[in-house]
Amino acid sequence: MGQNGIWLLTMQTSTPQEGYELAIKLSRMGVKSTQPDVEVLKKIHPEYANNPTDLTRASHVIAVNFQTIAVANDYWKS
Amino acid sequence: MGQNGIWLLTMQTSTPQEGYELAIKLSRMGVKSTQPDVEVLKKIHPEYANNPTDLTRASHVIAVNFQTIAVANDYWKS
Amino acid sequence: MGQNGIWLLTMQTSTPQEGYELAIKLSRMGVKSTQPDVEVLKKIHPEYANNPTDLTRASHVIAVNFQTIAVANDYWKS
Amino acid sequence: MGQNGIWLLTMQTSTPQEGYELAIKLSRMGVKSTQPDVEVLKKIHPEYANNPTDLTRASHVIAVNFQTIAVANDYWKS
Amino acid sequence: MGQNGIWLLTMQTSTPQEGYELAIKLSRMGVKSTQPDVEVLKKIHPEYANNPTDLTRASHVIAVNFQTIAVANDYWKS
Amino acid sequence: MGQNGIWLLTMQTSTPQEGYELAIKLSRMGVKSTQPDVEVLKKIHPEYANNPTDLTRASHVIAVNFQTIAVANDYWKS
Repeated sequence: MGQNGIWLLTMQTSTPQEGYELAIKLSRMGVKSTQPDVEVLKKIHPEYANNPTDLTRASHVIAVNFQTIAVANDYWKS
Repeated sequence: MGQNGIWLLTMQTSTPQEGYELAIKLSRMGVKSTQPDVEVLKKIHPEYANNPTDLTRASHVIAVNFQTIAVANDYWKS
Repeated sequence: MGQNGIWLLTMQTSTPQEGYELAIKLSRMGVKSTQPDVEVLKKIHPEYANNPTDLTRASHVIAVNFQTIAVANDYWKS
Repeated sequence: MGQNGIWLLTMQTSTPQEGYELAIKLSRMGVKSTQPDVEVLKKIHPEYANNPTDLTRASHVIAVNFQTIAVANDYWKS
Repeated sequence: MGQNGIWLLTMQTSTPQEGYELAIKLSRMGVKSTQPDVEVLKKIHPEYANNPTDLTRASHVIAVNFQTIAVANDYWKS
Repeated sequence: MGQNGIWLLTMQTSTPQEGYELAIKLSRMGVKSTQPDVEVLKKIHPEYANNPTDLTRASHVIAVNFQTIAVANDYWKS
């Protein structure tokens, strides 16, 4: 489980937007699993958040995770 | 929900083209979730929009999101 | 709908090759949605079309869109 | 149809390996659709084929296309 | 089987979080299959773990593997 | 079939780990299809295997191929 405790209990969300927010969370945990030091992450964040290429890459990862979450919720159809 | 309010109520769209437009919106929200400062986004946009590699990357993210939306709408078959 | 009018009425195509051509169209519209200025696109095209990395990236986006279109057409099986 | 004539009549192949070869073909047609000039493609090929990053990128595009073709053939199960 | 012994007996996990941890493992084994020398991996790790672009790339690979694992577990629905 | 002979007879493997090894094989054949010269591949390998970004890219391609193989084997559920 690592140092992050329990952070992913279910793939189910009430709305697509909450699903998108979960996709963001999954994407960040992917980064954190490689670099768990929060101080390092804070330090490199500006470099990242001001670079259009990196921002697009971040959106790409969220899109892949959102795909997974959307299927898990049957696209919030019902 | 963050500062953007409710922006994703449903995955359903009437036509494939509206689905594609929703894919563009999802892709932009992915960028915005990492860099919420609109002034920064405006500032880096030209750098981005004139770079063929970045434009292809943007199209890639839209393609992944469109894939999700297309399934959600059963490919607008009926 | 933006300045491009209606350009995506259906995901259905008669043959796999037409499906591939639609995938190319979707990929280009993804670029155009970020950079709608055709003059800019023309100007940066040579830089792009002579760069093997960018050409592979373009083929990658087409592959993702073709995946979506192929499912929509049940792989043109019948 | 463009200058390439008919090149994709069916997604069906007899074996997985032929499916992989079709995936290579699709990936190359994606490049050709952006840069149709064969002389340019020949000229940039060495640059490309000696660069490990570009070779991995090429393998990535083939993997995406192979995914599509594998589903179309029900993974050659029967 | 190579020098790593048996490391992947099943795709099934009890919870989504354990599934995510398996996705991290798969992603690392993908690196290790290309560079099996643990000393080299240790040496290049800091370079990697302090680079926001590389961290995003790592998260991307985890997202793809998590997608596979999530389907294998029917999204831990029941 | 090219110079590699028959190398992909079936997508079926006995275990998930063998499936992962097949995914590695597919990823390498994707590289080899673009650069068939084994001497060139040997020459550029160190450059590649010591670069964390390239190693992550390799793991990414394996992840995509593993996704295909996992479905073909119904995730080795039974």
